[in-house]
Order: sequence, then C-alpha cells, then structure tokens
Amino acid sequence: MSQLNIGFVIFPQLTQLDFTGPLQVLSRLPGAAMHIIAKSDAPVPGGFGVVQAIEDRETVEFVRRQAAGAKYVTSVCTGAFVLGAAGLLKGRRATTHWAYTDLLPMVGAVHEKARIVKDGNVITAGGVTSGIDFALSIAADIAGTAVAQSIQLSIEYDPAPPFDAGHPDRAPEAAKSRLTARYERSREAYRASLGRVFASP
Amino acid sequence: MSQLNIGFVIFPQLTQLDFTGPLQVLSRLPGAAMHIIAKSDAPVPGGFGVVQAIEDRETVEFVRRQAAGAKYVTSVCTGAFVLGAAGLLKGRRATTHWAYTDLLPMVGAVHEKARIVKDGNVITAGGVTSGIDFALSIAADIAGTAVAQSIQLSIEYDPAPPFDAGHPDRAPEAAKSRLTARYERSREAYRASLGRVFASP
Repeated sequence: MSQLNIGFVIFPQLTQLDFTGPLQVLSRLPGAAMHIIAKSDAPVPGGFGVVQAIEDRETVEFVRRQAAGAKYVTSVCTGAFVLGAAGLLKGRRATTHWAYTDLLPMVGAVHEKARIVKDGNVITAGGVTSGIDFALSIAADIAGTAVAQSIQLSIEYDPAPPFDAGHPDRAPEAAKSRLTARYERSREAYRASLGRVFASP
Repeated sequence: MSQLNIGFVIFPQLTQLDFTGPLQVLSRLPGAAMHIIAKSDAPVPGGFGVVQAIEDRETVEFVRRQAAGAKYVTSVCTGAFVLGAAGLLKGRRATTHWAYTDLLPMVGAVHEKARIVKDGNVITAGGVTSGIDFALSIAADIAGTAVAQSIQLSIEYDPAPPFDAGHPDRAPEAAKSRLTARYERSREAYRASLGRVFASP
C-alpha cells in the first residue's frame, strides 16, 4: 500500500480539539503517516489563535503551496479562514464555526449550511467537534466504509450529548446570546485581519 | 468565585482524544484552572500507554493521594484501570472502553453498561469520545445547565456520525471482530499488568 500522508498545520493558541478530533480518527487509517507541522516545536497551548495564523505569511504560503499538490484540502472550525487567506476558498461552497459563517464572503466563499461541506477536493467542517464527523467521512472516502466503521467503534463514537444545545438553530436562546456577545470581539478581529490580508499587495 | 481546580494526569503514549475532549469542554468552565500533570514535560505522543501507567507507582500513588481530597474522581476510556490500580474502584459501579469492560472485576469494580457511570463521586466514562459527553455532564453539575449548554454550543457539539457503528451492540459484525482480534494482545497486557499490581506487596 502506498503511504497516505496526512498533514496538520498547527500554530500558537490552537483550539486543541479542532486538531485532536480528526487526528485521532485519521491516525488510525491503515498506512497513514501523520505530519504535524508547526513553525516551532514549542508547546502549543490551547486558545483562539487562528486569527493570528491568518496574518502569518509563512503559514498561509505553506498551506497554499501544499494545497497545489494535495488530494484533499480541508479545514475544521475557523481554520477555514486560513484556507481562505491562501485563496483556496474563492468561489467555493464552504462552512466554518457557526458564529463566523457570515464572514465567509470575505474570502470569496459561499456559506453552505451543513456540518461538513465538500466542494471538489476542498472540504470544510463546522466548529470544533465537527472535525470528528468530518474525519470519519473522509476516512470512508479514503479507505472504505468498513475501515471507517471500525475506527468509529474503536473510539466508541456513539455520541450522547446531555443536551440538544450544539446547533445554533436548536440551542436555548440564552446560550446563544451569551456566546454571540462573547464572540463579537473575536469576529471583529477576524474582520480586521482578513481586511488587512486582502488589502496587502 | 472560588477557583475550580481541574487536574489531568497524563503519561507517555496517551490517547490524545481521551484527554483533549474533556479538556476542551472543562477549560471553558468559568473560573476553571486546568492542571496538566505529567512526570516530565517531554512531548507526549499518542498511543496506548495506559497499561504502562498502571504499573507506574509514582503515577498511581499520585492519583490515590489526590483522590483523597478531590470532589470528583474521574476517568475516560481505560484510564479506569489507573483509578482501579489505585484502589479507587473497589466495590464501585464503573465503565471503561467497551473492549475492556470484562476486566473491571480485576480491580474490584462491577461493570455497569452505560456511556457514563456515576457512583458517588467516582465517575467513569466509556471509550475515547465518551469523554466529551462525560465532561458536558459534569460541567452541568458544577456550573449549571445554562453554562454547559453554552459550552456545548461553543464547540458546536451537534454530532452527526456518518455511520451507526460507535457502539458494540450496533456496529457491523465485521468492524467488531476486526477490532476484537486486534485488541486481544492489548487485553492480555492489561491482564498481566493488573495481575502484577495486585500481586505485589
């Protein structure tokens, strides 16, 4: 079997589960070699660092170069804006964390309301935990249903959330408005950051 | 608000998602201080290292000492056997990864068939991804339903697995038998390891 190279570009203040959800699934694919790619080997504490990554030319250029030869180009959560900054979502249907979907036009993408959006070889997933569903779906594409199902069973992915609050259409209004207020500053930072990226020569 | 101290004992060859699923949920609790506890600050690659942790006296002793003053004593996946090696599951109802539940009597526990099992202040969760459900449930206990729901929404936890293969009762027979064969050696290692722990003076 030829080697299956899977690369994760990580950066300071990464949201851990955006990365480790898909990593846990995809590292169990037969023949998969995982490449965890970062500018330094310093520990990467969790946080909300995508907005800095968007303006990091080295990171964005790396993603653009790799995308040219990649079978799949994918993102989880607001990682979509890293693809976007690299010009990879232009004219594509895409998604991102629910609180940021209205910013997708800033990178030339059209928001499609779904947990996982496939447009050609570009696959974007919604917020954080959507990365697990995304990874199982791509595992099935790559290695077949039987392999994906055995990975799902190995991680006992039989979700039973205690509440039905994980989607903005069904979450209680209180949860939604609490977060919307909290995200406003972050959304402003994304807008500013993307504005600078696309204004620069 | 008094500080909420949450400790994660990690060790070499940790299954990343066992740790980062709950971490991502619990780190969003108001006033929470996360303590990631390891014997060294060397990077911790993913793997199947619980079986070594069980026989590491320092780790097990640490867990036993901390448990004495803890409000909750919890585990995800086969982490249950670390609690077990520390004597913390004796006479308790508990669970672990589905492929290892029949080993629970070796640590004096009675398996209860559920994704999350609470017995007093000891909470054990099933395999890997069950840690997310577990963490949301304990988040609600600690900080109330409204907070837990807003955390669930912030991580967009509206799971949509592509297959219904995450529970051994419903997974296709092929997935189950493929894994059962693969786990046999690991189960043997757990049996041997627990045998040595409980045989030693």
